[in-house]
Amino acid sequence: MEIVEQYNLNIDGDRLWQRLMAMAEIGATDGGGVNRQALSYEEHHAWRQLIEWAKEFDAEPFIDAVGNLFLRLPGENPQARPILIGSHLDSQPQGGRFDGVFGVMAAFEILQTLATSQLPRPRDVVAVAWMNEEGSRFAPGMMGSEVFVGKRDLAMVRSVCDANEISVGEALDTQFAAFPDLLPSSPGFPVHAYIEPHIEQGTRLEQANCSIGVVTGIQGKLTYRVRLVGVPGHAGTQPMAERRDALMAFADIAVHLQKEIGHYDECIKLTIGHLNVTPNVPSVVPQAVTFSLDLRHPDNAVLKDRGMKVTELIQAYSGACRVEVKPLVVAPSNDFDESLRGYITKCAEHRGYPVMPVLSAAGHDARYLAQQCPSAMIFIPCRDGVSHAEHEWAEPKHVTAGASVLLDVVVTLLTQLVPANEESDE
Amino acid sequence: MEIVEQYNLNIDGDRLWQRLMAMAEIGATDGGGVNRQALSYEEHHAWRQLIEWAKEFDAEPFIDAVGNLFLRLPGENPQARPILIGSHLDSQPQGGRFDGVFGVMAAFEILQTLATSQLPRPRDVVAVAWMNEEGSRFAPGMMGSEVFVGKRDLAMVRSVCDANEISVGEALDTQFAAFPDLLPSSPGFPVHAYIEPHIEQGTRLEQANCSIGVVTGIQGKLTYRVRLVGVPGHAGTQPMAERRDALMAFADIAVHLQKEIGHYDECIKLTIGHLNVTPNVPSVVPQAVTFSLDLRHPDNAVLKDRGMKVTELIQAYSGACRVEVKPLVVAPSNDFDESLRGYITKCAEHRGYPVMPVLSAAGHDARYLAQQCPSAMIFIPCRDGVSHAEHEWAEPKHVTAGASVLLDVVVTLLTQLVPANEESDE
Repeated sequence: MEIVEQYNLNIDGDRLWQRLMAMAEIGATDGGGVNRQALSYEEHHAWRQLIEWAKEFDAEPFIDAVGNLFLRLPGENPQARPILIGSHLDSQPQGGRFDGVFGVMAAFEILQTLATSQLPRPRDVVAVAWMNEEGSRFAPGMMGSEVFVGKRDLAMVRSVCDANEISVGEALDTQFAAFPDLLPSSPGFPVHAYIEPHIEQGTRLEQANCSIGVVTGIQGKLTYRVRLVGVPGHAGTQPMAERRDALMAFADIAVHLQKEIGHYDECIKLTIGHLNVTPNVPSVVPQAVTFSLDLRHPDNAVLKDRGMKVTELIQAYSGACRVEVKPLVVAPSNDFDESLRGYITKCAEHRGYPVMPVLSAAGHDARYLAQQCPSAMIFIPCRDGVSHAEHEWAEPKHVTAGASVLLDVVVTLLTQLVPANEESDE
Repeated sequence: MEIVEQYNLNIDGDRLWQRLMAMAEIGATDGGGVNRQALSYEEHHAWRQLIEWAKEFDAEPFIDAVGNLFLRLPGENPQARPILIGSHLDSQPQGGRFDGVFGVMAAFEILQTLATSQLPRPRDVVAVAWMNEEGSRFAPGMMGSEVFVGKRDLAMVRSVCDANEISVGEALDTQFAAFPDLLPSSPGFPVHAYIEPHIEQGTRLEQANCSIGVVTGIQGKLTYRVRLVGVPGHAGTQPMAERRDALMAFADIAVHLQKEIGHYDECIKLTIGHLNVTPNVPSVVPQAVTFSLDLRHPDNAVLKDRGMKVTELIQAYSGACRVEVKPLVVAPSNDFDESLRGYITKCAEHRGYPVMPVLSAAGHDARYLAQQCPSAMIFIPCRDGVSHAEHEWAEPKHVTAGASVLLDVVVTLLTQLVPANEESDE
């Protein structure tokens, strides 16, 4: 903590808040939230704003082929692995003003604070906005970070289409064409440490009156896309006994999933958030239904066991419909880096912020970064735990707290020697 | 039957079939069916084709303000009420080649046959293509005939929007702009008799080896639009016990509707054909669900009783969601005109076609015309009873049979004296 005291660095909380509110204008919804989906015009706009602000202190923007945006504050040793901080700019279609963008703007504030300080930087500090964390326009989410760490193939990601049959590939090319000065590099580079600030999206910090959560890990998640195929028929003429109604089969499946899995214990989360019916007209017996299934649990054994039950139940209650169950994400629970968690706790305590460990119930890009480098997350409270909704809210004092702790952790990392053998292994 | 024999009139079955197949090209789908929805570009195209063909024998096209298209073959007495025959040109999004368009093209064939014959016509004979019978793009269906008979308000109909927020009013204005020579008249005029040929959309004629069905009536129908409003939440963080998940509430409702109503007896039909989820993304607990409900039964007492049960069950199983149940259509079972049914039976028998009475399980525009004038329907078989599907099929010989019986019934009506007191009461 001496070094933190020695340089007495502080972020500018007002500037950070004003930039957050300016970002909230990009894709602002009538309901007070944000609709800034992955690779949309609104996200282009947010990129442009961020790059414009970065000119104030000469942070260098660069992008990769999966649409991750980076801002580099150069350090003394270009061979040393950078410290990576940030989150994502994309939102849910009816999302809030903090989810993702808080982490990106906090990282940006750290860059500006360091750039205008005398603190020596043996390493680059890089802020990142990952591509498509949310997974609402293109499923699954966290494509940017997964491709970055080499866990998912760029070509596969490019082939995924949104509801209007626009592929990630097409959307990326449109995005790149809007930024002709930025040449997309091949995704992925070695990282010294990754730290992601985020709103909690739960109520534990708020209930405990804590400003800072040290995230212990992320609960495991399984996601699926399920398709039920029946036979269309005339609503007035086809006898009930002869129907192969895909929507009625869905209803039966959903009720049994809820009963056997959704009520398994207090920790489990089962969500069917997306459903499309074909042909979806009032007087035709539904021919097909496609739906998403999202299952989460902190205990990997339970997650695996209930995951097997998912397929079993869908098969059992599909009536006369044909079934396809396609797993999209298999992400077991993980633990974040112990040293980084220790730094976060110490830095929070040093600033006098009440701090506690929390498990993240939501998924984050840090889940994938943790597979490549020491990673951690800093949570701040959000009102009533509400997120993925237009009335999501975080208090300015908590935004300042989260960014201040991030600054101190980065300062701590910057004051550590770069090992002689550390070289970029790109 | 003497008069039928005297003039020895016959339709041209080949010409009728060729025109039906030409119509099937307008909006043809890859699956062999037709997508020619109400007031679409494809329906414009079908109108244009019909008007073009009508020039061959000087039938006069005219339209009304709700988008019904008529072709008039003038009779001797312009004050006498016309005989109205036809059906609709719009299709389901994945519809077949016969539903609706068979009736319109059969009527058209009758006009041409009469125009080139020596048979005196004391009355106009008018072919009609009703606007939006299907109700798939704009709900509910049969808007054109309902407004024609004065059972629904034009302004209300114009305000209904499709999934892309295009209103019937806007779509009508676009349609009218494409036909500047046709000035829309105020909907509705007195009619002497209405006869609608249609495929059965069921299997009774096929199973009984009958070419002609004399439709006794149309089974009763209740339709609703239901909206369930819950609260959105994050799929990973919101505890199951705190959720107000609109899609899970729907599933519970659907299972109970199926159990308590869908399995009530062998005649009942319960269909949820249309469902939309908000915001409809994988990682957000559904905030709202809107769905259609279509309930049919030939017995009005059963229909009424089960209809009351619908609202009761939806309320009972809506969980913590807010519920809105809006009735769209209340159409009790009806009986078609006995004289017309008698003519159809006699004309079919006279031509040697096996004929039987059938109840229509599907709704048709004739349901509404029957509220204004003597009305009837002529059914022909369709393969396996399949309709509202791309593989819907009718045999050429049955198409010819249906049109031939329609011709003979119209000839029968034309040879009856116009009562001295019959004047247009427009």
